[in-house]
Amino acid sequence: MAQKVDLLLTNALVLTMDEAMHQYEKGALAITGDKIVAAGEEADLRKLYQPAETIDCDGKVLMPGLVNAHTHVPMTLLRGLADDLRLDVWLMGYVLPVERQFITPEAVRLGTSIGAAEFIRSGITTFADMYYFEDSVAESVAAAGLRGVLGQTVMKYPTPDAESYEESLSLTRKFIEKWLHHPLVVPAVSPHAPYSCTEDILRATAALAAEFDVPLHTHIAETSLEVENARRDWDMPVVPYIKKQSLFEAKVLAAHCVHVDKGEINTLKHHNAGVAHNPSSNMKLASGAAPIAEMLKVGLNVGIGTDGPASNNDLDMFEEVRLAAFLSKFSTNDPTSLPAHQALLMATRLGAQALHIGHLTGSLEPGKRADLILVDINTVHNFPHFRRDPNGTYAQIVYAAKSTDVTDLMVNGKWLMRAQELTTLVEADLLAEATDYAKNVDRFLIARESSVVSKLIAIGGTTQEESFEVQVKAKIEEPEAITAALNNPEIEIIYKRRYHEYDTYFIFAEAGQGILRYREDEFLNERGDIEKVRYRLTLIGDLHEREFPSDVMLSRSRYLATANHSLRFYREYFKPSREIHIEKERQRWLVRYKGTEFFINLDQMNEPDLGTFVEVKSRTWSRNDAERKSKLVVELAEFLGVSTDQTEAREYVRLVDEEKQH
Amino acid sequence: MAQKVDLLLTNALVLTMDEAMHQYEKGALAITGDKIVAAGEEADLRKLYQPAETIDCDGKVLMPGLVNAHTHVPMTLLRGLADDLRLDVWLMGYVLPVERQFITPEAVRLGTSIGAAEFIRSGITTFADMYYFEDSVAESVAAAGLRGVLGQTVMKYPTPDAESYEESLSLTRKFIEKWLHHPLVVPAVSPHAPYSCTEDILRATAALAAEFDVPLHTHIAETSLEVENARRDWDMPVVPYIKKQSLFEAKVLAAHCVHVDKGEINTLKHHNAGVAHNPSSNMKLASGAAPIAEMLKVGLNVGIGTDGPASNNDLDMFEEVRLAAFLSKFSTNDPTSLPAHQALLMATRLGAQALHIGHLTGSLEPGKRADLILVDINTVHNFPHFRRDPNGTYAQIVYAAKSTDVTDLMVNGKWLMRAQELTTLVEADLLAEATDYAKNVDRFLIARESSVVSKLIAIGGTTQEESFEVQVKAKIEEPEAITAALNNPEIEIIYKRRYHEYDTYFIFAEAGQGILRYREDEFLNERGDIEKVRYRLTLIGDLHEREFPSDVMLSRSRYLATANHSLRFYREYFKPSREIHIEKERQRWLVRYKGTEFFINLDQMNEPDLGTFVEVKSRTWSRNDAERKSKLVVELAEFLGVSTDQTEAREYVRLVDEEKQH
Repeated sequence: MAQKVDLLLTNALVLTMDEAMHQYEKGALAITGDKIVAAGEEADLRKLYQPAETIDCDGKVLMPGLVNAHTHVPMTLLRGLADDLRLDVWLMGYVLPVERQFITPEAVRLGTSIGAAEFIRSGITTFADMYYFEDSVAESVAAAGLRGVLGQTVMKYPTPDAESYEESLSLTRKFIEKWLHHPLVVPAVSPHAPYSCTEDILRATAALAAEFDVPLHTHIAETSLEVENARRDWDMPVVPYIKKQSLFEAKVLAAHCVHVDKGEINTLKHHNAGVAHNPSSNMKLASGAAPIAEMLKVGLNVGIGTDGPASNNDLDMFEEVRLAAFLSKFSTNDPTSLPAHQALLMATRLGAQALHIGHLTGSLEPGKRADLILVDINTVHNFPHFRRDPNGTYAQIVYAAKSTDVTDLMVNGKWLMRAQELTTLVEADLLAEATDYAKNVDRFLIARESSVVSKLIAIGGTTQEESFEVQVKAKIEEPEAITAALNNPEIEIIYKRRYHEYDTYFIFAEAGQGILRYREDEFLNERGDIEKVRYRLTLIGDLHEREFPSDVMLSRSRYLATANHSLRFYREYFKPSREIHIEKERQRWLVRYKGTEFFINLDQMNEPDLGTFVEVKSRTWSRNDAERKSKLVVELAEFLGVSTDQTEAREYVRLVDEEKQH
Repeated sequence: MAQKVDLLLTNALVLTMDEAMHQYEKGALAITGDKIVAAGEEADLRKLYQPAETIDCDGKVLMPGLVNAHTHVPMTLLRGLADDLRLDVWLMGYVLPVERQFITPEAVRLGTSIGAAEFIRSGITTFADMYYFEDSVAESVAAAGLRGVLGQTVMKYPTPDAESYEESLSLTRKFIEKWLHHPLVVPAVSPHAPYSCTEDILRATAALAAEFDVPLHTHIAETSLEVENARRDWDMPVVPYIKKQSLFEAKVLAAHCVHVDKGEINTLKHHNAGVAHNPSSNMKLASGAAPIAEMLKVGLNVGIGTDGPASNNDLDMFEEVRLAAFLSKFSTNDPTSLPAHQALLMATRLGAQALHIGHLTGSLEPGKRADLILVDINTVHNFPHFRRDPNGTYAQIVYAAKSTDVTDLMVNGKWLMRAQELTTLVEADLLAEATDYAKNVDRFLIARESSVVSKLIAIGGTTQEESFEVQVKAKIEEPEAITAALNNPEIEIIYKRRYHEYDTYFIFAEAGQGILRYREDEFLNERGDIEKVRYRLTLIGDLHEREFPSDVMLSRSRYLATANHSLRFYREYFKPSREIHIEKERQRWLVRYKGTEFFINLDQMNEPDLGTFVEVKSRTWSRNDAERKSKLVVELAEFLGVSTDQTEAREYVRLVDEEKQH
């Protein structure tokens, strides 16, 4: 007796992408519910199964849906925002400011739906995402019917969906709890990258992922600068560093891994981490070529990802697979490297394994979910067909076929596209909404065309400083009293320095531009001789209009850059409306008080001659930490004889500016 | 009074790609006959012109048709034949044998028509071709209505359309004369590459191109090996070498130029040569990255080409433009390199200039031919649209749009595609023909699965030897008579060598496989001591069944390779059905007789002991040269006391084999 099944797909060239790479030239696939029952020759399956419905595939290729191993899908809304720029300029000058302004749960839903339509049209059934408001991504993905490993982002900077990482972590826990048993959505934790997280964040996210046994999706070793900085700051490359932070307690999906060495590849393999290779993004941003051939040789699960559509600028996995093959050949100087069948395997079964859902999808095998596509190879650019060599069929898909050849797509046993018509999304509505959205973003960017921060970032080398600042500052009459108070054994002095500081402040007419400081620091030794000179630019943002428990705690953006050019250059480049010059002699101590580090500055103002000030301060990425420190800083200031009713809230530049105006 | 025009295209985002890079957001284009009358804002053009017909472009992008600067279009028929192979294996093991067997004028017509359909569908209006039977290419291109710079190939090897280069040259002259004044076809001369041509061929093709003032289309510096060989053989890189051969007397289009230095770039610029950059092909074959940014900096006209569809494997210029931008960023480590507007310029105006037809096409300017496309950017993968930055529109086309977004295409004022329907070609008929063709090729390749020549080539380092051989051979009784005759002043001895040769011949059961010789050459000095040892493989093809004026002249294929592996390796690899061993002592002279060089071998056969033989021989690529030499060789043999009625036609291996069988 033939077994009953829901559906039999017949008359297809079936590429199973299973372990044995079975191909069936006159093939068929039997499906019941959300699962594959069997793949094989049509003649055999017709004997074995009695289908409720039979669909003739018209000689098309029937294969697993593609797995996009790394993306930021809501960024479809930012596609084409800015191109042909350095990563830092693009990210900090355009993407982050626009995200801060325009990324809301509604925008994320819209961007995800547009991305979902593009995924379905181009044959992608599964993807790994990392963004903000990931709950909104999940809602849209579930509605569209796609499969997603969806990572809620956690990082040390304030994000569109959280003011602090503590908030992100608690968001992430709720997100996981909500989606943990969903048939399509696999929730995940996404610490953005080692350099954009603190050690605490890395440990906390790993623990959270391990607690719920969900994947941890992060960016690893994308640029050579990242690795240089890792060696400088942590004395080791990136993979050993994340291992030290216990990241591998979780099921890791590591995007990029462009600059990893053999030891790191072995570590990734040892911990069963997945890797997402993003050739378009890595080429477009000039990040480099990941050592994919070596990774595959040791048996790592390497998938292929499009990266975000704002940097790529599409979600076309056909293009991405072809480019993966091209880039591997080019960068290893070996045209036999990454042959078509292996490249296509990365985009299907290996990709699913990299996402830690290889048991669910990635190949057409009994028991796996029915995630599949039909590809029409009876188009002019796909002709002719040679069948001599089994690699030929894969080569056809990889080197000749286009994403627009995909005609039908099924996820979890449900058709999401039939004959290039979408069944779960109405594209016209989405595109109308996106048009309005783009107009608003355009307006915003045109308005801030002469933004100082974007101009600062555009010239490179800029880093963002901790966003929370805790400070007590006061004018004093007896500097000796401070230095005497520092001898108290409750205050441990870590180091002391002395500088002569020449500051030029650029003031801008437009509101919200912040103040840009060009500083020449002469480092003085004990005898008062100049030992070295340092030139730096600091862009000090306006204070955020937020309520804080204490007026010693501030939140503002600060960007720091080495000043490689002359003051004249910066003057011409930034065109400030006014300048203010300040010259002072600073004694600075780094001290530890009750286990916490603070800076103490004793500043003698020479130009203009304003007397002497003391500053007690600390900065941090964590809001909780800032609150804790704001209590300590008051204590420490009082310890030094500064009472909080004497304090001066204004920065030196404001103080001098206001004196001048009078 | 408004001027009358044939056609006004309205409601389009017009990208003119002219010198000033004019864009018209609500733009229009006026056309009369085959020419553009004006491009501008729709409101302005509506006032100035009175059109017989107006077509609303529905907000699509209206831009110049793309220029594919280098391809071998009939090779659509070989698309997917073999992939992921080394260039030599792919070319010599698969493509050349199939071409020899299957490339006929009919096949070229079919392949060109398929390529034309693909060109039209993907927005290409103009292309530069290089192939055999180029007259058939031209016939198909003219019928399809496309614009082409079509190069008839000339090379030193026999080709599918000519037994010798003299024949190719005369074919080319007729081809140029036939097409010289055609409105769409620009005939061109295509010496294949410096390494595949002789100096005579290079000079003759340059003279021919100059005579008719037509372009000369060739391959230059595609691989690093080519440059190494140039330095070894000619003591200079490739560009100075072709300059020395007077190639720049013609209007040169140089494909690839991957491995050229600054001096060579300046030379190309000085001679106004065009360059065709082929990023897909260069990456897929691991040839390297051409220094495009440097070329553009000096003002070279650099176009973008798909290369042949058998190596790419498509004719998709959208993909190619995007990859050009990616590859430039990647290889210069600079994401600002080759921004979108410059990449698109390469694919339009610069490409046309590289083909030396910049006066005809490449931009939407008054007086140029109406070669244009409409691109629908109202698709999901093209959303949203930002208009803040003029580069954004180009970035959209380069990074997000797909070739399948092209909806309409016009060449020379005539629509070749309207709403994705072709007007000059019936695809279904072409694809049916291609299916039959592919089946025949598949059968052929399956049949020669164990071909010795392809197996030899597959292991690398193989070069093809001159195809014409002139030889007189005879058994002699008095070797001393020969050496004495060599003292005659009419014979100039250039050098003399002495070897001990140990030959192993592999004989194959299948007909047409040729005989493979593994030879160990011991070089002996005057005292008979071994000075060095050389190991070589030679595959000696069967004699061609052709009529020759004299029986001393032969034509056969010969492939030579350094034998890096052991005899045991080759035995296991090639699996011969029988082996024959021969050992001899050879004295060899290179002599000049009546101004022509010949080899004279005096061979004492030791194993088996067959006595002494003399051989007088020469090889050449030219049939005319062979005919001339065949007279001289007889003269020279008689001079040495060998009369032609004594001659032995059989090679040593045949001779020994036949002796053994008796």
